[in-house]
Amino acid sequence: KHIVLLPGDGIGTEVTSAAKTVLAAVAEEFDHTFTFESKDIGGIAIDNHGTPLPQDTTEACKNADAVLLGAVGGPKWDNNPSHLRPEKGLLGIRKELNLFANLRPVRGFSNLLHASPLKREVVEDSDLLIVRELTGGLYFGTPSERRNNGQSVVDTLAYERSEIERIVRRAFEAAMVRNKHVTSVDKANVLESSKMWREVVEEIKQEYPEVVTEHMLVDAAAMKLITSPTQFDVIVTENMFGDILSDEASVLTGSLGMLPSASLNEKAFGLYEPVHGSAPDIAGQGKANPLATILSAAMMLRHSFSMDVEAQRIESAVKQALDLGFHTPDLDIQDGHEVNTEKMTEVVIDLLK
Amino acid sequence: KHIVLLPGDGIGTEVTSAAKTVLAAVAEEFDHTFTFESKDIGGIAIDNHGTPLPQDTTEACKNADAVLLGAVGGPKWDNNPSHLRPEKGLLGIRKELNLFANLRPVRGFSNLLHASPLKREVVEDSDLLIVRELTGGLYFGTPSERRNNGQSVVDTLAYERSEIERIVRRAFEAAMVRNKHVTSVDKANVLESSKMWREVVEEIKQEYPEVVTEHMLVDAAAMKLITSPTQFDVIVTENMFGDILSDEASVLTGSLGMLPSASLNEKAFGLYEPVHGSAPDIAGQGKANPLATILSAAMMLRHSFSMDVEAQRIESAVKQALDLGFHTPDLDIQDGHEVNTEKMTEVVIDLLK
Ligand SMILES: CC(C)[C@H](C(=O)O)[C@@H](O)C(=O)O
Ligand SMILES: CC(C)[C@H](C(=O)O)[C@@H](O)C(=O)O
Repeated sequence: KHIVLLPGDGIGTEVTSAAKTVLAAVAEEFDHTFTFESKDIGGIAIDNHGTPLPQDTTEACKNADAVLLGAVGGPKWDNNPSHLRPEKGLLGIRKELNLFANLRPVRGFSNLLHASPLKREVVEDSDLLIVRELTGGLYFGTPSERRNNGQSVVDTLAYERSEIERIVRRAFEAAMVRNKHVTSVDKANVLESSKMWREVVEEIKQEYPEVVTEHMLVDAAAMKLITSPTQFDVIVTENMFGDILSDEASVLTGSLGMLPSASLNEKAFGLYEPVHGSAPDIAGQGKANPLATILSAAMMLRHSFSMDVEAQRIESAVKQALDLGFHTPDLDIQDGHEVNTEKMTEVVIDLLK
Repeated sequence: KHIVLLPGDGIGTEVTSAAKTVLAAVAEEFDHTFTFESKDIGGIAIDNHGTPLPQDTTEACKNADAVLLGAVGGPKWDNNPSHLRPEKGLLGIRKELNLFANLRPVRGFSNLLHASPLKREVVEDSDLLIVRELTGGLYFGTPSERRNNGQSVVDTLAYERSEIERIVRRAFEAAMVRNKHVTSVDKANVLESSKMWREVVEEIKQEYPEVVTEHMLVDAAAMKLITSPTQFDVIVTENMFGDILSDEASVLTGSLGMLPSASLNEKAFGLYEPVHGSAPDIAGQGKANPLATILSAAMMLRHSFSMDVEAQRIESAVKQALDLGFHTPDLDIQDGHEVNTEKMTEVVIDLLK
């Protein structure tokens, strides 16, 4: 299996390098061959090649079996014109590789829950998966432009019915191997696109009679995520709503630094990345928490390589490491051991062997 | 002053009637003359007139000095075709009366904070105001339609620069009489409309040098509202983001039943309504909490009638009622007295005299 690494900016380098070490250890342990290649994306690509997404990077990703990304962005590029911003690299690669399905699981770790802004009894045992449409909607619809001499502006929320179908189907498939519950989030009382979304869900749910399906308005979902996060299993929604709700969900368990994500195409191909950002303030100091990226690598094994046992092994090792009290400086565990990025990675590797 | 009451559906009738009694008491106490007139909107209007927003209702509102609305909607109309849904009445009246500025203050009540899903130390002392643009954006942009034989769909996020200017200015004005801090929320790394939004904020903030201004991406704002609600003073944002964030914010303090709102036009005219819904399950049983509507009436006095002292008097009375332990069944106060809608209203009236 050939894996392209896109370290990107800030702590991206450290965390992808950590995850690569873990993947190499898994390969050795299970007798697989993983090859790696690094490419530029984001700010570093702007510096080195004058564009946040060099052609060469896109090509390499297209020829790989999976992609592992660190993070992009930093103050250095914050005032760049919009086509020279690091996140354009991210948006570009999603579109180029047709990564329409963004999967963001949120699960609490018992000895980190104390850091949650929510009361333990509210958030405990929550275990949800947000399935966000990633290549359509307001993000890519045209026109997106100024009009009337700059006196007005439009953006366009556009979907093909087929784009809605494939993401909704992906959500139901995910629910089948989880708790068989899908919450479809829309704004069907206002948007025509949401009405179509709801119709598609009504159609596709027929194919999954075992799954309990509900529709929820996006404003209600934004409330329920906070008041009763445990009531959700799989949430499926369009791109912009998914952006907002998945970030909202990411802070519920108090450990943003632990959350992985996958962005998949129609086949098994995917780009995997931690949910957290590039944290330029702590970059290069060995303080970065590599676990979200390591867990993203586990998602890669599961979703792109069908290596369930191997994925499971990484996930157990991470859980065990926390149970033993090991943590990076971003986390706090009572009577725990604070370690740096490298040591944390070693602990995980020791535990997975 | 002539006030149109739009009780609407469910508990709407009970809570507007409670607020009317309070307004009448204020009139007596301060020697004002308030006249009232009731009109149909929402489900009841569909039943009585075949449309969620009868012409007669719009006319009456246009001739009034302010409007007090209860709530609209209920299961009875949930399966109606979209032009015969109660919320179309709400969207219609906002547009007809040009109510572009939606103000939703969120403030905790100390003896209700225990009901918050957030830890007390996170949410305590939070006091924010969401200023949501209410008549533009995705809600009203055209085209909003199916295309290609129903194989695709578009909605349109459209703004005039002048629409952005007036809502942003309103937010700065609000900040000037609060804590002089504005957080403008957008998605400027993706949307052209957000880029214009950010430019307008940059321009208008020059007129308010005392106000500290920051820009925040909507996904980051969805996180920060939960992790550090106290860092906000005034949040200003476009219609759809405002819908999501204001509902998210509404559950932070654990007392959704206490939150008022105002929707204002360019002049002092406004429509005032509680943030909560029509709660059809408890309608007509005297269980409804009238305080959000009573506090909405206080906002009416302040924003439409410039009766600051009177508004203050209502707000203090409500606070005192809670401090004395009086509460409706939706709330829980330690060693408190559970009372019905009518009694709660009486207590407030006694206290404001
Ligand atoms: C960087 C930004 C364009 C991106 C998005 O909005 O999709 C990010 O917020 C995310 O969720 O991956
Ligand atoms: C009922 C609905 C159309 C409305 C909205 O989305 O504006 C409501 O959610 C609100 O926030 O007042």
